[in-house]
Amino acid sequence: MSHGSHRISSKKHIAVLGSGGWGSVIARIIARNVLHLKRFHPIVKMYVFEEFIDGRKLTEIINKEHENRKYAPGYKFTKNLVAVSDALDAAKHADIIVFVVPHQFVDNLCKSLAGRIRPNAIGISLIKGFDIKTGGGIELISHIISTKLLIPCHVLMGANIAGEVAAEKFVCTSTLGCKYKARGSFLKDLFNTPHLKITVVADEDTVEVCGALKNIVATGVGFIDGLEENNRYKEAVLRLGFMEMVQFVDVFFPGGNISTFFESCGIEDLIVTSFAGRNRKCSAAFVKTGKTFKELENEMLNGQKLQGPPTAVEVAYMLNSKDMTNKFPLFTVIHQICTGKKPAKALLKCVDDNIARRVYLPKNLIP
Amino acid sequence: MSHGSHRISSKKHIAVLGSGGWGSVIARIIARNVLHLKRFHPIVKMYVFEEFIDGRKLTEIINKEHENRKYAPGYKFTKNLVAVSDALDAAKHADIIVFVVPHQFVDNLCKSLAGRIRPNAIGISLIKGFDIKTGGGIELISHIISTKLLIPCHVLMGANIAGEVAAEKFVCTSTLGCKYKARGSFLKDLFNTPHLKITVVADEDTVEVCGALKNIVATGVGFIDGLEENNRYKEAVLRLGFMEMVQFVDVFFPGGNISTFFESCGIEDLIVTSFAGRNRKCSAAFVKTGKTFKELENEMLNGQKLQGPPTAVEVAYMLNSKDMTNKFPLFTVIHQICTGKKPAKALLKCVDDNIARRVYLPKNLIP
Repeated sequence: MSHGSHRISSKKHIAVLGSGGWGSVIARIIARNVLHLKRFHPIVKMYVFEEFIDGRKLTEIINKEHENRKYAPGYKFTKNLVAVSDALDAAKHADIIVFVVPHQFVDNLCKSLAGRIRPNAIGISLIKGFDIKTGGGIELISHIISTKLLIPCHVLMGANIAGEVAAEKFVCTSTLGCKYKARGSFLKDLFNTPHLKITVVADEDTVEVCGALKNIVATGVGFIDGLEENNRYKEAVLRLGFMEMVQFVDVFFPGGNISTFFESCGIEDLIVTSFAGRNRKCSAAFVKTGKTFKELENEMLNGQKLQGPPTAVEVAYMLNSKDMTNKFPLFTVIHQICTGKKPAKALLKCVDDNIARRVYLPKNLIP
Repeated sequence: MSHGSHRISSKKHIAVLGSGGWGSVIARIIARNVLHLKRFHPIVKMYVFEEFIDGRKLTEIINKEHENRKYAPGYKFTKNLVAVSDALDAAKHADIIVFVVPHQFVDNLCKSLAGRIRPNAIGISLIKGFDIKTGGGIELISHIISTKLLIPCHVLMGANIAGEVAAEKFVCTSTLGCKYKARGSFLKDLFNTPHLKITVVADEDTVEVCGALKNIVATGVGFIDGLEENNRYKEAVLRLGFMEMVQFVDVFFPGGNISTFFESCGIEDLIVTSFAGRNRKCSAAFVKTGKTFKELENEMLNGQKLQGPPTAVEVAYMLNSKDMTNKFPLFTVIHQICTGKKPAKALLKCVDDNIARRVYLPKNLIP
């Protein structure tokens, strides 16, 4: 037996790091899938940031009642899912590590794992956002994970609302970005179900950038909602925002494929998030109540984190360091509104000024 | 003075053929614009399909009260707009003829004008839809006009709701497709206002095809509404529908530009129409009430015509004649639902079956 086929036939251990809404739902799918996939070890470990719910540890509740009462209530895990409160405990023997913590926690998580995981482990990031590079620019979360843990890291992003994927009332879809074809189809089986169909593309960076940027656009759509302005403004924000997404990938992550924008992770996720996601709801409330995003996050999100405003900060940092804010007027004004530098109405003027802007033609993307 | 500059400096006569909601609003803009544009003749003639409103002729009401009481109530025309009940009377001396009748009436309209208009006239079609070619295939309305009247015909399509453009509460945008650059900017001035910003692209066919096909997709979104299904289905219909639009242009109208899909006439118009347009509303009612589209058109549209179902028929005719229905599953099932061959729920199955379909990669479009 060759070394390659030996590795495929050995049972791969899976860890899921993160247990918010999306983390719990995805861990539930993985744990169910590995039960009938012989090449994976049947025990799936899920790292849970420990909290106390009515005086009981969340890990205990999950392990006894097989349900994440706080973030995914009503959805039972299969018994092969084991919750642990220590990330290293979950990850140290894992061959495949799924990262699904809020992006603010990635740095510390990586610190606790660096040098202590299997050298041949493979990462998959479901995290939306960027990390700021000291000295200018931004870094993709998957690149951070890859660099800090010295493992490859692929991505899964798509037009999914956690509760809807869990409910399995209809078919959802998600995009797995993995530059190695055979590995992509191997990893796909972990996530794929009759109700969550996974498409694999090689263009990892574009998948991840779409997942991050769409939250900025959705934040803008929420401002229009909060202003109670006409829907045409929302549609214009969607179109202009989509164009800036394409432009951003073209300028900062050249070599991607235009077609990736038409996968679930692209245009569909953008529309879903802009009409249904938590970023939109919070930014509508931001305009209506005058509260800060921090306050709204606490009041409205039951422990979940907002993604749009911090991503807008990261993108603004990037654009400033490259002196390109005027080339991305929508991202820029949304950031200025988030940070209180401009009133929400500034977005209307930005749309009016840019609505007849020439369509951005990518120079560095492949059709 | 050269012949070319002589023609530019002579006063061009404008005719608007059609006086429904969009026709009246666009005629109002043109009539206002020509008052301060020296190169156009100040009288704008509008062909009105004669109707009686409370015993009075609609043309008389428009010419005395300067308002189309039936289709654009509340919006006064400038007095240089003259309504006439005979299309030939409006068009015979015109240098620029704007076509904005329901697409069902184009053939007869062309018959009444053929051979009787100025040989150097220029057409601009705002009509959404196709015409069926006997012997297989379809023809663009602008091509029909061009072929039957022996004049060039350009197009204007965009993400506009007539009433909103008229109200001028915010900035709208529309795409003028004109393959000759200088003529494009000349024609743009007729339509451009601070509240309706016109972008000009050379890629006329793609502009027009987008304007027609978006109504099929919007009809599908309306079915999801009528079924009271989850919004994720709507977003999936939008994405899959957009992909079929790109594919349709790529296969049947090769040589266009991918960028045109990102103009107002493309993705933005698709979203606007799918969330706000009359096609969506009627197809939701089609599912809920079980009435025919003909009945719903009479009950719900106050004399306006539905565009989605007839366009679906035309496209199905095309796809059948080319043996390509299975390559366009969404367009095909929407047509089958429109004609009662399948129940509306068949659209859900079509989405489930195609949601993880590979993104269509255009072969004959230019980035």
